[in-house]
Amino acid sequence: MTVSLSGFPELLPAQRTVELAVLDQLRVTFELHGFASVETRSAEPLAELLRKGEIDKEVYVLRRLQAAPDDEPPAPSSSTLGLHYDLTVPFARYVIENAGHLEFPLRRYQIQKVWRGERPQEGRYREFTQADIDVVARDVLPFHHDVEVARVMAEALASLPFLPALRLQVNNRKLIEGFYRGIVAPDVAAVMRTVDKLDKMPAKAVGALLVTEAGLSTEQADKCLQLAAIRSADTSFVSRVWALGVAHPLLDVGLGELSAVIEGCAGLSSRRVAVQADLSIARGLDYYTGTVFETRMAGFEQLGSICSGGRYDSLASDGRSTYPGVGISLGVTRLLMPLFQRGLLVGSRSVPSAVLVALPTEQARAGCDALAQLLRARGIPTEVAATPQKYGKQIRYAERRGIPFVWFPSADGPHEVKDIRTGEQVAADFATWMPPAEDLRPRVLVNPVTVKRDEPPQ
Amino acid sequence: MTVSLSGFPELLPAQRTVELAVLDQLRVTFELHGFASVETRSAEPLAELLRKGEIDKEVYVLRRLQAAPDDEPPAPSSSTLGLHYDLTVPFARYVIENAGHLEFPLRRYQIQKVWRGERPQEGRYREFTQADIDVVARDVLPFHHDVEVARVMAEALASLPFLPALRLQVNNRKLIEGFYRGIVAPDVAAVMRTVDKLDKMPAKAVGALLVTEAGLSTEQADKCLQLAAIRSADTSFVSRVWALGVAHPLLDVGLGELSAVIEGCAGLSSRRVAVQADLSIARGLDYYTGTVFETRMAGFEQLGSICSGGRYDSLASDGRSTYPGVGISLGVTRLLMPLFQRGLLVGSRSVPSAVLVALPTEQARAGCDALAQLLRARGIPTEVAATPQKYGKQIRYAERRGIPFVWFPSADGPHEVKDIRTGEQVAADFATWMPPAEDLRPRVLVNPVTVKRDEPPQ
Repeated sequence: MTVSLSGFPELLPAQRTVELAVLDQLRVTFELHGFASVETRSAEPLAELLRKGEIDKEVYVLRRLQAAPDDEPPAPSSSTLGLHYDLTVPFARYVIENAGHLEFPLRRYQIQKVWRGERPQEGRYREFTQADIDVVARDVLPFHHDVEVARVMAEALASLPFLPALRLQVNNRKLIEGFYRGIVAPDVAAVMRTVDKLDKMPAKAVGALLVTEAGLSTEQADKCLQLAAIRSADTSFVSRVWALGVAHPLLDVGLGELSAVIEGCAGLSSRRVAVQADLSIARGLDYYTGTVFETRMAGFEQLGSICSGGRYDSLASDGRSTYPGVGISLGVTRLLMPLFQRGLLVGSRSVPSAVLVALPTEQARAGCDALAQLLRARGIPTEVAATPQKYGKQIRYAERRGIPFVWFPSADGPHEVKDIRTGEQVAADFATWMPPAEDLRPRVLVNPVTVKRDEPPQ
Repeated sequence: MTVSLSGFPELLPAQRTVELAVLDQLRVTFELHGFASVETRSAEPLAELLRKGEIDKEVYVLRRLQAAPDDEPPAPSSSTLGLHYDLTVPFARYVIENAGHLEFPLRRYQIQKVWRGERPQEGRYREFTQADIDVVARDVLPFHHDVEVARVMAEALASLPFLPALRLQVNNRKLIEGFYRGIVAPDVAAVMRTVDKLDKMPAKAVGALLVTEAGLSTEQADKCLQLAAIRSADTSFVSRVWALGVAHPLLDVGLGELSAVIEGCAGLSSRRVAVQADLSIARGLDYYTGTVFETRMAGFEQLGSICSGGRYDSLASDGRSTYPGVGISLGVTRLLMPLFQRGLLVGSRSVPSAVLVALPTEQARAGCDALAQLLRARGIPTEVAATPQKYGKQIRYAERRGIPFVWFPSADGPHEVKDIRTGEQVAADFATWMPPAEDLRPRVLVNPVTVKRDEPPQ
């Protein structure tokens, strides 16, 4: 990984094979569940980007270098274009614009780069890739889609066996809002904002803030901290909430919804991806109205959540209709960069080639090209040596790239193929020989000493 | 296709399946030939972007909305960031920066969006996708790589059977420069620039300009036009050039190189992708030094070249080493958008799902989800109906999305699956049933009346 421009990381070819493997696998899972690919343009009118009032997102504004001075004012106006800082705002605009051509409920996945002019630090980049899934309906979106997006993302993450253990934490805004109403908090929004700080400061400090800033009594604040301390891999959280002795109709709805998500994901939880009810999760963003998601990676808790989302009763609205949605967004760059930086993940080779065809002489090139083409026709990525060096040098050429097999053509006797990892060299027929399936594409190699693969974080 | 912001086209989901099919197939071909994926950041320092002096490229400059007034001057400076306008300039920078970590010769493909603040028109967009392949070496790049990139791109284009016929036109700068030297043209560069206008104005007008602007005699100008009129699918162009009676050592080198490319591609030419020597091709850009490529699409000649490139003896240089390269760049957006706009290409469905599992009652959802999961485990993209409507409505739900099969679960008897295109409904076992291979993914549908698929343009 190289970062010659702060906040704009780039990958070396062997690392890029890992990123491609991740993006491919995400796409496979999303498509198996019927999610359709959508891409939106990278730029939106500034007015659209700032519609939600989140001007702290550090938007990058675009200006044509060749713009005539009168063309566009140097000070940004509402018609100025900015690069999108997430994939939700542009998708909402896309849904409204194309509503007449879309079929609802619409399952879409969107894997694109986004840009934020933030101060770069670990886990924060100025250009990064997100992978979002959302289900959007017109007017009414049945609750089972909340379960669906959780299941699909959990399954997608579980299909990346080379990642550290992950914990998908689920909560419900109705549950916590109902609870805060049940204890008669004077300012529910202030309580939510304060509780959201639990991952950044000790519980005791949050408790003090709940009194001074959210206007709770010490007893009320204590109840809120007790609620936030509840987590469970099954629905046992329900009885623990009841044990706190707080009642409110909205709380009951929230408990029911959260139970449904946890039950729906029960079969999916594995040692690598644990799905848990975690009642400390609040998600600061105002637009979530029910289910909320966050995800922590074992050993990388300081990154914060690498996969977040939730239910929003109004993703978009065009005056005639409202479009409720539920979605979850994976920070692909935030997930992978720290693993690359620590050398924990790398591709097994820097080229797609599984085979290098050795070149005995420059005159033999046409024949070697034809042979390579026969291997390619059977799906085997193959390259021909660049120059007819001594075979020892050609083998080292393959070694440096991580190409596992070198093919030695022969004008008279049988061809031979060498596995340069074991040194084993055998006769081979170019019409039938296949490398082992796991050697056909670059593999993702994990440093097994330092990555805790089997234990979810507690 | 929708364009709510001029120059920033977006695709509807069924069109996006076509774009994905194109990008997937390009990648498969590039990787079979050992080309490795590289992505570079979207932004480069303005100084880097303008290094080649091509400020006419209409660079988009970035500025943080939240920048303090003193932070960054509103007037662009050399440290200002701009969005890349092609993939060659950033790749050259990447090669220099990472030379110590890369293995040469480096085969790379790069599929990314680029941005140009140009006036939008058909074939010209402000945001568009390019797919580039290049081979880059340190110090010396053998000529056979010129043949290689032509072959790989021709093969990649031929693997997209739903495109109109394409003509990959190859020429060689040494050939035309040698010819111009052979006729003792006073200003070779001026001749090249003028001949490059042949696709925009009649030969007669170009001939007049060769006299008035490039300082040629009428006889010299006529020779240049005769040279530019030569095209052939085989190496017969050589004797036609000789017949013009011009001699120069550089001309001989060029004739030899162009012959090698044409011979190397001989087996690849098909009725859909014709590889031709075309001696009118000059490529305006200064940095090409040998082989040059352009590509025309039948019926869409007004778009200009949709796939261009060539050999450059110095892609990049870091003082110690020079990095020669040869590459070719496909304008994916320029290729596809006109076909979408005319309704000539569309995906067979708007969702990846091959199967819709019908939902008899809401209570049956868990069972239907489990069934869907079994189909997915065998690689069949499957969704479950959103609501337990009457089966007729569920079938229409599938129809509107283009989902070919509806699965009817049964609690007692055998399950049944209906091909909603034929209406045929048969008993099916969820453990073994597979849709036909061509129905597993969305297909690309061509309007067979208007696209001339089998005739290359003349």
